[in-house]
Amino acid sequence: MPELRKDPILGRWVIISVERGKRPKDFPPVIHKKKGGFCPFCPGNEYTTPAEIIAFRPEGSEPNGPGWSLRVMPNKFPALEPGGKITKSGEGIFDKMSGVGVHEVIVENPDHFLSLSTMPEKSVEDTLWAYFIRLTELKNDPRIKYVLIFKNEGEAAGASLEHSHSQIIGLPIVPRTVRDELQGARNHFDMKERCIFCDIIYQELAEGKRIIGENEDYVALSPFAPRSPFETWILPKNHEAAFGPRQKSFKPLAEMLQRILKQFDALLESPPYNYIIHTAPFSEEQSEYFHWHIEIMPKLTKFAGFEWGSGIYINPTPPEEAARFMKGTF
Amino acid sequence: MPELRKDPILGRWVIISVERGKRPKDFPPVIHKKKGGFCPFCPGNEYTTPAEIIAFRPEGSEPNGPGWSLRVMPNKFPALEPGGKITKSGEGIFDKMSGVGVHEVIVENPDHFLSLSTMPEKSVEDTLWAYFIRLTELKNDPRIKYVLIFKNEGEAAGASLEHSHSQIIGLPIVPRTVRDELQGARNHFDMKERCIFCDIIYQELAEGKRIIGENEDYVALSPFAPRSPFETWILPKNHEAAFGPRQKSFKPLAEMLQRILKQFDALLESPPYNYIIHTAPFSEEQSEYFHWHIEIMPKLTKFAGFEWGSGIYINPTPPEEAARFMKGTF
Repeated sequence: MPELRKDPILGRWVIISVERGKRPKDFPPVIHKKKGGFCPFCPGNEYTTPAEIIAFRPEGSEPNGPGWSLRVMPNKFPALEPGGKITKSGEGIFDKMSGVGVHEVIVENPDHFLSLSTMPEKSVEDTLWAYFIRLTELKNDPRIKYVLIFKNEGEAAGASLEHSHSQIIGLPIVPRTVRDELQGARNHFDMKERCIFCDIIYQELAEGKRIIGENEDYVALSPFAPRSPFETWILPKNHEAAFGPRQKSFKPLAEMLQRILKQFDALLESPPYNYIIHTAPFSEEQSEYFHWHIEIMPKLTKFAGFEWGSGIYINPTPPEEAARFMKGTF
Repeated sequence: MPELRKDPILGRWVIISVERGKRPKDFPPVIHKKKGGFCPFCPGNEYTTPAEIIAFRPEGSEPNGPGWSLRVMPNKFPALEPGGKITKSGEGIFDKMSGVGVHEVIVENPDHFLSLSTMPEKSVEDTLWAYFIRLTELKNDPRIKYVLIFKNEGEAAGASLEHSHSQIIGLPIVPRTVRDELQGARNHFDMKERCIFCDIIYQELAEGKRIIGENEDYVALSPFAPRSPFETWILPKNHEAAFGPRQKSFKPLAEMLQRILKQFDALLESPPYNYIIHTAPFSEEQSEYFHWHIEIMPKLTKFAGFEWGSGIYINPTPPEEAARFMKGTF
């Protein structure tokens, strides 16, 4: 008998096939080899992208030329546009707003053929720093209410260029998914005076069966009600609402993130994936009830009419099983 | 400048690229040719599926053998299982429920190579009758709280078998998407004593720019805040909360649905698509605030990290433009 499970934060149900759980080798590998060819993110082609916002490069090397180890620039085809004022208007029953915002790209390493799982750990650490630097900087733009940091790896997961990169979108609204998560966390806090994420971490560490690994600062786990097989979350063990370094370092987080991605590669033949940094909106960075974390989802199943119509996800791999496979390297 | 638009029912924002709107030919066609080969849904192979629940077949023809024009059977690999009681339990902070429910398949026509757009209109009409008959029957199962009726056409839209079919899933909960829609509609009714869908239809018919077509009973339109290019809704013009025939006939609805799917084929080279029947839960079938409708979404864009993290969809085709193309045949 399958099991319906509810995510305690969002109230989102998923259907877990408990008995005939799919194991890693049951998922057909998604071919996802990099072809190469002309790439605007490769060193030497800097002139084909908008001018860089920041770059990590040796002293003395020229902006917008080679030599960098990481580069952040505006997206050439942005979803939202940075120039202009936010205008809000109605159209009878409908509401709209000008699409003001920022859309940036972070090229994590100059090598076209590396991915976040195969590049030097230092590049992953630098990537997290770049996220933090841009997040902090974008706080100064009063038009931006929320900054979404995410990565699409592989074409099937929505990456339109194969050179590994992350994206940052600064939005003039706090998006619905974030609001729902905040609201769920607030409801729990109102009832219990406790952070729901802290409660989850406490229970998961005590039970152990969905824990993938931990270090001094972070824990990686398979959530109780995952939308997709091998969905993995990384959370700071101590309560923190907003994404940032611990004790001025991103090394422990980079190490854990890369270990998880390497384990995906080993188990699932370098699957396409998405990850998203869930952080508090600027106005709630000191929140007692929200707890930042990273949600990573390999793209192994299709979402179709049922998911669209119900918001319920069908997941053929129980998280207890996924955790057992994932904890291999820890 | 792109435009942020809000769906008035769900409060869901989308980003519409107003200026560089993508036209039908800008979407690379998704190859979606049927290969044939052994098919459990083809006549003669009835023995390979679970026994039929209902079938439209000439008098005297034997159940579970050829001769049928439409066939409904349990899904061989159901997401939920019909036997057993609903048991609900907790696991510390987490909640779960046994996965009791029904999962049925409707094979709309015996011909393997036809799709809903190319089969005789009578088959489309019969399909709508089959939806209604099963929906009505499943009301008698007290464990079922909601019945989701949907169709995935084409592999990219999640169809695992190429012989055209629809699916019915009876759920032991009212799913989140339906609850959100009900809540949005209820909020509007509480403020205005009017159905929000009726209000939308009124405004859209008055303005005309997002109307695709209408007949005496139904209107087809591009919604103001569509998630995907060429998303199309069909709504009954008169207020009705629950899916059903008008004046004992599904002919006008079948005619309109097929016309829209034919126009997708013509404009977008037979794209994969999903559609979902949004109907009121059994307990609210007389609701003054909910209004049943069909939402049809061709699969032309990818949903990735941004959509997962924000719940905001990026749509490169303004609905006014989509409606202009879609109204071609009306």
